[in-house]
Amino acid sequence: MTNLTQLSPDHITTNNQQLQARYDAFKARGLKLDLTRGKPSAAQLDLSSALLSLPGERDYLAEDTTDCRNYGGLQGLLEVRRLFSGMMGAVPEQVVASNNSSLALMHDTIVYALLKGTCDSATPWSAQGEIAFLCPVPGYDRHFKICQDYGIRMIPVALREDGPDMDEVERLAAQDASIKGMWCVPKYSNPTGTVYDDATVERLAAMKTAAPDFRLFWDNAYAVHHLTDDAIEIANILDLCARYGNPNRAFVFASSSKITLPGAGLALFAASKDNVKWLLARLIPRTIGPDKINHLRHVRFLKSPAAIPLLMNKHKALIAPKFEKVLATFDQQLANVPGVSWTRPRGGYFISLEVPHGCAARVVALAKEAGVVLTPAGATHPYGKDPNDSTIRIAPTFPELAEVAQAAEGVALCVLLAAAEKATGGKAGA
Amino acid sequence: MTNLTQLSPDHITTNNQQLQARYDAFKARGLKLDLTRGKPSAAQLDLSSALLSLPGERDYLAEDTTDCRNYGGLQGLLEVRRLFSGMMGAVPEQVVASNNSSLALMHDTIVYALLKGTCDSATPWSAQGEIAFLCPVPGYDRHFKICQDYGIRMIPVALREDGPDMDEVERLAAQDASIKGMWCVPKYSNPTGTVYDDATVERLAAMKTAAPDFRLFWDNAYAVHHLTDDAIEIANILDLCARYGNPNRAFVFASSSKITLPGAGLALFAASKDNVKWLLARLIPRTIGPDKINHLRHVRFLKSPAAIPLLMNKHKALIAPKFEKVLATFDQQLANVPGVSWTRPRGGYFISLEVPHGCAARVVALAKEAGVVLTPAGATHPYGKDPNDSTIRIAPTFPELAEVAQAAEGVALCVLLAAAEKATGGKAGA
Repeated sequence: MTNLTQLSPDHITTNNQQLQARYDAFKARGLKLDLTRGKPSAAQLDLSSALLSLPGERDYLAEDTTDCRNYGGLQGLLEVRRLFSGMMGAVPEQVVASNNSSLALMHDTIVYALLKGTCDSATPWSAQGEIAFLCPVPGYDRHFKICQDYGIRMIPVALREDGPDMDEVERLAAQDASIKGMWCVPKYSNPTGTVYDDATVERLAAMKTAAPDFRLFWDNAYAVHHLTDDAIEIANILDLCARYGNPNRAFVFASSSKITLPGAGLALFAASKDNVKWLLARLIPRTIGPDKINHLRHVRFLKSPAAIPLLMNKHKALIAPKFEKVLATFDQQLANVPGVSWTRPRGGYFISLEVPHGCAARVVALAKEAGVVLTPAGATHPYGKDPNDSTIRIAPTFPELAEVAQAAEGVALCVLLAAAEKATGGKAGA
Repeated sequence: MTNLTQLSPDHITTNNQQLQARYDAFKARGLKLDLTRGKPSAAQLDLSSALLSLPGERDYLAEDTTDCRNYGGLQGLLEVRRLFSGMMGAVPEQVVASNNSSLALMHDTIVYALLKGTCDSATPWSAQGEIAFLCPVPGYDRHFKICQDYGIRMIPVALREDGPDMDEVERLAAQDASIKGMWCVPKYSNPTGTVYDDATVERLAAMKTAAPDFRLFWDNAYAVHHLTDDAIEIANILDLCARYGNPNRAFVFASSSKITLPGAGLALFAASKDNVKWLLARLIPRTIGPDKINHLRHVRFLKSPAAIPLLMNKHKALIAPKFEKVLATFDQQLANVPGVSWTRPRGGYFISLEVPHGCAARVVALAKEAGVVLTPAGATHPYGKDPNDSTIRIAPTFPELAEVAQAAEGVALCVLLAAAEKATGGKAGA
């Protein structure tokens, strides 16, 4: 790629005019493409279409003869907890299975901690003045939204190749008792694809925290969502927390949303015995029980834990080519452009694209104008503010492969144009 | 019936010994009966067994072509809101359809008001010092549990034949700005079967409240759950609140739990436009959307609002005989016993039995000893404390009719025995 800073003024003008012409041509195609959210495609949903006629009219008894159609069963069906407990790194007794949306479970545990405190809190979090969460960045916008909504101060910490900057995390957690929690997507992190290495997980489990009721919000959303043949396993946070004398530190979350159906899945919580007891006590005033028929439906569909990796392989076959297409396009179009880089995730739903500082919002605006909708710039950071205006989240799973290819071309072009604009201090081609 | 106070000491001893003998004989039968909770019977659940294979493998598109299997649709499927909006007394735009458990919706609206305030609150409820709810008694234990759990003071008000004591409600609401809410089960109230008359509903809509963000928690759980051919309609609280200039006063709740399946139903919220906007804004940090496939499943099963009363007639055919059996037994065994009376509900799931003051806990204990489990005495009152120890909730829907008959016999016997013990100042037959 041409390095703009090394070109003569004439060359720059020509280059910028060519880019502008390419952009105008792309725009003229009148495309409508959407790379905003990590949604499975229709073909992925078809993999679980059998769910839509399960469990069947005569099939409603759990293995303990509970009539799943009726009230009750606060912790969720034992057999569905057994089905997913391996994925959660816990025994079924440590798992709570709920309705759809693990986000709702994360939200609710924070709400309960705010209003009532955790099982290790002297008083409710809301009675302890301003509290804070550590937020590895870039991260997941909906995690940050919960904190913002409830006035929980967010402290960004850098996410590196092997996990959060642990020196910084340990320093902050040890000194500041107002730090009550930390968001972690430990495997195939949203949006970078980062996998926490064993040392990071161990340090998170072992570190001193000034707050006795500090919690890791361990959103293992992509536990089985591999993009390569290497089914990466991370260290077991619950085991490590217990080993280091902090058994209640981790709340582990996951869901079946991107395994079966996002609109009709089930959410999962796993934690220590005391945390589970605490959550169930908090759930009693809220509900008489979750949708047990949907639990049974998932048991009938998946049958055994061994079915999960087989189903995930089929997802991989559908989405890995989309990631490869985006990466190939970026390799071709953006290699060696100064300030531009991107992640090569081995799993999960996102690619994180770094553009020159001050260019992310401009890239998103250019793409929108050309019919490619991207997640708003800044969404990957607390308060929606990326201080460098440089991170863009790419979500390639939902559109068809041909559309992903077009969208990736468009994004790459917008990056080149925005970078050129920045280098020349104004609009390219102007 | 014999009036114990008019008998000679010898007669009393003989009477008590006879009762004790009857009780011992009942106990010796070793029955295991449960009248605790308002659960549909298996035969009622069978009415909706078609749901268990719906919507079918190829049926997942909503009428607006939304793929219900995927994320999104925060307010719930339009067609399911249309299906139930008549029951809610609202237009579909005023309805939010959620996952199972209307209790969860009630809990969550209170949590949101505590942490963020309603759309009419200057500050969150939790920042306004101690707050209070008006609680018609006897009432629903799970309503009271939410208040107790979050430290909301409960102020009991008497529930009369036509609704709460409105003079008292108006007096309290007008003078005390800490009163933020009121629990109402306006039709076939739990546990008395009370139906609020039009004047009561109108006064609730029109009354002055010292708190500008006062809310009626209008739990219309039994909107279509008639036990007679008279499908009683109550006044429309949303319309009346709007007419009297208090459009945001009512949060209306209902669910499909006792229409289709309690373990796999959907919950409903209806309110003013501003309240709906508020709730949706509160839901955004919590979830990307409810289980839309279960919404579609209900649409495919019920097809149209006209199907709801037809299905409810089938429920009535199954449960009305159980209510009749309990009432006939009480008529036969307990008529003219001083201090003993019971309600004759025209709908809903409960009969409320009044026993002589100080006898309710004893009746429940005697019944338990004889194998008949009743809802704990006191559960119908705030903090689980019935000041008169006189109210017992009878839930006859779940057991088979023959079991209901046995249980009613047992309860009547325990009432007679407890009343006799009380009249003689000690244990009967002792």
